[in-house]
Amino acid sequence: MQALDDPDKRSSGEQPIVLTTDFGLTDSYVGVMKGVILGINPDAAIIDLTHNIQPQNILQASFTLATSYRFFPKKSVHAVVVDPGVGTARRALLLDTPQGRFLAPDNGVLSGVLADFLEESPPEPGKVELPDGLTAYSLTNAAYWLDPVSQTFHGRDVFSPVAAHLCLGVGPDNFGESISEIVWLPAPQPARHGGAIDGEIMVVDHFGNLVSNIPANMLSGIIEPHVEIKGRRISGLSRTFHDPLQPGTSADSSPDSDKLVALLGSSGFLGVAVPDGNAAALLGADVGEPVRVVFKS
Amino acid sequence: MQALDDPDKRSSGEQPIVLTTDFGLTDSYVGVMKGVILGINPDAAIIDLTHNIQPQNILQASFTLATSYRFFPKKSVHAVVVDPGVGTARRALLLDTPQGRFLAPDNGVLSGVLADFLEESPPEPGKVELPDGLTAYSLTNAAYWLDPVSQTFHGRDVFSPVAAHLCLGVGPDNFGESISEIVWLPAPQPARHGGAIDGEIMVVDHFGNLVSNIPANMLSGIIEPHVEIKGRRISGLSRTFHDPLQPGTSADSSPDSDKLVALLGSSGFLGVAVPDGNAAALLGADVGEPVRVVFKS
Amino acid sequence: MQALDDPDKRSSGEQPIVLTTDFGLTDSYVGVMKGVILGINPDAAIIDLTHNIQPQNILQASFTLATSYRFFPKKSVHAVVVDPGVGTARRALLLDTPQGRFLAPDNGVLSGVLADFLEESPPEPGKVELPDGLTAYSLTNAAYWLDPVSQTFHGRDVFSPVAAHLCLGVGPDNFGESISEIVWLPAPQPARHGGAIDGEIMVVDHFGNLVSNIPANMLSGIIEPHVEIKGRRISGLSRTFHDPLQPGTSADSSPDSDKLVALLGSSGFLGVAVPDGNAAALLGADVGEPVRVVFKS
Repeated sequence: MQALDDPDKRSSGEQPIVLTTDFGLTDSYVGVMKGVILGINPDAAIIDLTHNIQPQNILQASFTLATSYRFFPKKSVHAVVVDPGVGTARRALLLDTPQGRFLAPDNGVLSGVLADFLEESPPEPGKVELPDGLTAYSLTNAAYWLDPVSQTFHGRDVFSPVAAHLCLGVGPDNFGESISEIVWLPAPQPARHGGAIDGEIMVVDHFGNLVSNIPANMLSGIIEPHVEIKGRRISGLSRTFHDPLQPGTSADSSPDSDKLVALLGSSGFLGVAVPDGNAAALLGADVGEPVRVVFKS
Repeated sequence: MQALDDPDKRSSGEQPIVLTTDFGLTDSYVGVMKGVILGINPDAAIIDLTHNIQPQNILQASFTLATSYRFFPKKSVHAVVVDPGVGTARRALLLDTPQGRFLAPDNGVLSGVLADFLEESPPEPGKVELPDGLTAYSLTNAAYWLDPVSQTFHGRDVFSPVAAHLCLGVGPDNFGESISEIVWLPAPQPARHGGAIDGEIMVVDHFGNLVSNIPANMLSGIIEPHVEIKGRRISGLSRTFHDPLQPGTSADSSPDSDKLVALLGSSGFLGVAVPDGNAAALLGADVGEPVRVVFKS
Repeated sequence: MQALDDPDKRSSGEQPIVLTTDFGLTDSYVGVMKGVILGINPDAAIIDLTHNIQPQNILQASFTLATSYRFFPKKSVHAVVVDPGVGTARRALLLDTPQGRFLAPDNGVLSGVLADFLEESPPEPGKVELPDGLTAYSLTNAAYWLDPVSQTFHGRDVFSPVAAHLCLGVGPDNFGESISEIVWLPAPQPARHGGAIDGEIMVVDHFGNLVSNIPANMLSGIIEPHVEIKGRRISGLSRTFHDPLQPGTSADSSPDSDKLVALLGSSGFLGVAVPDGNAAALLGADVGEPVRVVFKS
């Protein structure tokens, strides 16, 4: 293992370890990861992004991380453990970016982050070449793992100790060999054709708000948008959950649809909500539900 | 933005940032707030009070905060984000008290705290003049917010950065203009008439224990109290969940009611519980359920 | 209260306070415990092991703690609050071990930890003499508690302040008198007779994986094991959730059983899982379900 030059390189809130998993909060899995981290790096600042990713839902984890990581310090170490292939031949990764360092199984869970650095996102799953400015390593150096290593809990035995050492100042190339390609798992992309954009719901949040995959910039300059979902039509975009409609938009006449609002949500994507209510329940909509924006083209 | 005289004024456990929201723990909202805080104040100590306030339930948040804040360090910064009016004209507040600093939308969510400092609590909702010793500010200085600010997530874009700066030692008056009145939302008050006190259930906790709004001091000196709820009558107050009845009280003869105990709970209010069981389930009782104490007057 | 010689003895990540409770995360109970801790010891590092132990399930808490504590720093202070007898005559304990310090009600919740230090585990519940190297104290010195102390929330009023003071460097014998016996609550033990081992399911985790009480060392050297549960038979042990069967094992012919795998889980016990699926749901199995290993003897 690398000798550390400077004990002051230890982690703190400037480089928090941020945990994203599908482990839930009922078992002791998450707590044990933190115990391992503190055993190696007692000064680590550990933050939970969420542990309620649906079991093995790599795409959801990718989207959640992608809409969140820019709000963390640039030296953050993200440990992303949604890992159906744990213990198999799937690689474990360290992806180093100017906006954070990411530890994860090489199963596509970092695709949402990676997309921000790619000029173009490949439409098909596969492998993708790292763009300039990004480096990645295959975590193969067992000197930085717990001993023994289980075959079913690399969050505890591999990712946690590597995260802890990384924040202690151990250089990325100590953890394994440099690699130039990582697994790519594309999210469903919205498509524009003529006077319509077709997207789908990516997230149903705690409030029942529906978050689509249609980004704000795809809607800029669009005149008189109408958002269609589950047979309802919402005219115009609201600025807040309770705002009157924006100038130039008209009220909706569908039954009950007046309760619905469409708006650009805090994650930067088109969303559908019910003020003080639950849009998912009202509409009976879930992840994957198609959503369409029609407008004057 | 204010220049800081003393870098040692940075936050630590002496002035933790305490988060109370209705965001739940499934989405990344809470994690992202912590990322924003650490990005501004890497030494912040961040504590979760709870993120499971029922969506938009201002009254529940107010009661939860009121029964909790005195157990935190006096320099704590509480960020209380139950905010149905986010993005509308509702003000955002900093309320400075000798028992903690509170950041919240000006929607009444701080009423439970405020009540501790008022000589008399107004019975009707409205605005209330701040008592001596308390100061408040309207958060209007965008220099301390994220840029850009969303219209739907001020927890991330306004309250978190202000909390972080506040713990860094930025003076309260830097965040906006001083105000003298804030929104007041009264909790249901218990009423005593003759030989009875009428209250209601405020909280059903994780164990199914029922917590009423009847405070301990309203029961002091009362002789032979009987607690009535859902047609059951519990005679006498227990000291613990498993204690024999206190001297001078008699056993209950209602069917099943012998499983029920009434006691002064840890939050300082009359509660109803089933030892090793779930009172809410046994009684079919929820928040708002009337509870009456009858006694010898 | 003891005067502290050395302010640098304050807690940090080297001696985190680790919380295990059945309080859930909806109420403010856990948050309030942390507020109390920071009020006494602002530098405390506080980690949640889990707060979702089933209400009053002492055995589950004991097993969870036993499979987790060795992953934490040896100077950790574990506060274990699963405490149906709170406020009654049950003692409150400090158990000091070379692998961590434990604060808990004296109701058997530390039995899983204690078993690691006993030469032989008594089969019946009762009291057990502490082995060499372990010391325990009855928490009776109210100088280290909150004042007043409630009768229903010692997590807040007793265990949290004692944990905070302990990390500040207060010696264990300051908190109460030394004791030589503590309450013992044995977990169900697996039994081997002839060519079979009979155990039972101890935990159903977030993924629906079933964790038994049959430890890895009981299976070492066993040839051609078959795992039987709920009328299904799984032949051979998998190394990972997705591994092909190990050499020497044969496929299973029961309907649907091919989806099931048996493996040594990360906690060191035999487990049953469905790759990318939910074994508990598939089998309709819960805690207490019998599981049998048959083999060539």
